[in-house]
Amino acid sequence: MSKHPARNLLLTIEYDGTGFSGWQRQPGRKTVQGELERVLTSVCGQEIKIDGTSRTDAGVHAYGQRANFKGEFGIPTDKLAMVVNHRLAGGKRGRTTSGPIRITEVQEMPMDFHARFDARGKTYIYRLYNSPELDVFRRNYCYRIGQPLDTEAMKAAAREIEGTHDFQCFQASGSEERLTTVRTVYKADIRSEGKNVDIFVTGDGFLYNMVRIITGTLVEVGLGKMDPAHLARIIKSRDRQNAGHTAPPQGLYLARVYYETKEIPGYEEGTPGLG
Amino acid sequence: MSKHPARNLLLTIEYDGTGFSGWQRQPGRKTVQGELERVLTSVCGQEIKIDGTSRTDAGVHAYGQRANFKGEFGIPTDKLAMVVNHRLAGGKRGRTTSGPIRITEVQEMPMDFHARFDARGKTYIYRLYNSPELDVFRRNYCYRIGQPLDTEAMKAAAREIEGTHDFQCFQASGSEERLTTVRTVYKADIRSEGKNVDIFVTGDGFLYNMVRIITGTLVEVGLGKMDPAHLARIIKSRDRQNAGHTAPPQGLYLARVYYETKEIPGYEEGTPGLG
Repeated sequence: MSKHPARNLLLTIEYDGTGFSGWQRQPGRKTVQGELERVLTSVCGQEIKIDGTSRTDAGVHAYGQRANFKGEFGIPTDKLAMVVNHRLAGGKRGRTTSGPIRITEVQEMPMDFHARFDARGKTYIYRLYNSPELDVFRRNYCYRIGQPLDTEAMKAAAREIEGTHDFQCFQASGSEERLTTVRTVYKADIRSEGKNVDIFVTGDGFLYNMVRIITGTLVEVGLGKMDPAHLARIIKSRDRQNAGHTAPPQGLYLARVYYETKEIPGYEEGTPGLG
Repeated sequence: MSKHPARNLLLTIEYDGTGFSGWQRQPGRKTVQGELERVLTSVCGQEIKIDGTSRTDAGVHAYGQRANFKGEFGIPTDKLAMVVNHRLAGGKRGRTTSGPIRITEVQEMPMDFHARFDARGKTYIYRLYNSPELDVFRRNYCYRIGQPLDTEAMKAAAREIEGTHDFQCFQASGSEERLTTVRTVYKADIRSEGKNVDIFVTGDGFLYNMVRIITGTLVEVGLGKMDPAHLARIIKSRDRQNAGHTAPPQGLYLARVYYETKEIPGYEEGTPGLG
């Protein structure tokens, strides 16, 4: 019997998804979950399995992925983050340099807390780079659009996405069948500064590839290929064919996961029945 | 006999040095020169060997490396850049996305032009990130300094480096012996914006690790561990032990190579005899 009582820890995790085959553990592949479990198992001295909020695809990044795990060990939360980050950075450089994955926070939670089931909402950011020039340093971190984007048209289209809708048109075709494709988007907006155009989408849950298809659709609106006034009709059609292309993974960032509805941007406006 | 006359082409090259064992071709290793030669050989239909201005180390980046090569082929310069960049980006994504290496310019030069021997000066940029927080996205692109930097003290120290000096103190110990360790630094300055502190160094030539040791020295000045007024004495000592540590490779960028002295920032002030 362990001399430590059972604990349930919630991790906040930042990662550069570039070198990984996505979040989810897969035999023979380097994944974010796999790396974290390997290091946590070694640090905690017992087999650790973590449960993440979102199974991000290969190349997708996170500023604030969340995951929880249970175990019986005595390491304080701040020490755990330090030691794990140190290992993830490859040892001696760990104090000054980050590895591709970094735990930014560790919280003790009640034993019945679950990072995924208890999440009330998430914010994703999709980063566009609007420039005629290619850029080797941005290639893994945004989606370059060579022609000028009309961000006002994109903002108008984004407003049409807010609210509670059946979003089947924004679900990858061939996705596994779900009980429902109704979701609530609390807030969808565009923030641009110079060549950087960021799409922020906050919702109670997302269908497979939903933010990437929303992005492809907003890009087509921004390029004048689609009319923002048609967004409502596209959503209503529930047909993937009517939405835009799927934007590539490298521009997508899981920015934040919410466990309290009061923290969710646009929650009041977006609440079912009000949206 | 080829039906095309011999040509001498000058390339300007941008690269993300992260995944490479440096510039120089090495058997069994992925290097920038090796990748470029492989693709150019295939595109030009004859064995191509290129000669770069600077043999950047593993992890070091470039905004404007230069290299020249000779061959007998008819491809126009703009087409050459397009086709090579396309291949370097891995094929079909090449029109919208960059690979880790990108040719930004191709120029026809006289047959006796040599990218390295004819260079009159170079500018390197060393990028610091001054923040108590680690950052997974910056880990391969700058050198994080956790304690606040006094950029005014760093500027004062940088001024002491300008001019013509024997810079042996800034040469990696154990470097191969050179005819002379006298070099001219035309300009050395610091530009800071928020957490980003960039060191710009322009000179007629650089000793091995010179910019990285200058950076380590300026960082120690910025942290108050070294007095900017001692810089002249450190240089005069010609002793590597008296200079600061060697900053890591990932913050270093070969920014520009000059073939005309009139383009060199600070050239007038820094000219031997005036510096």
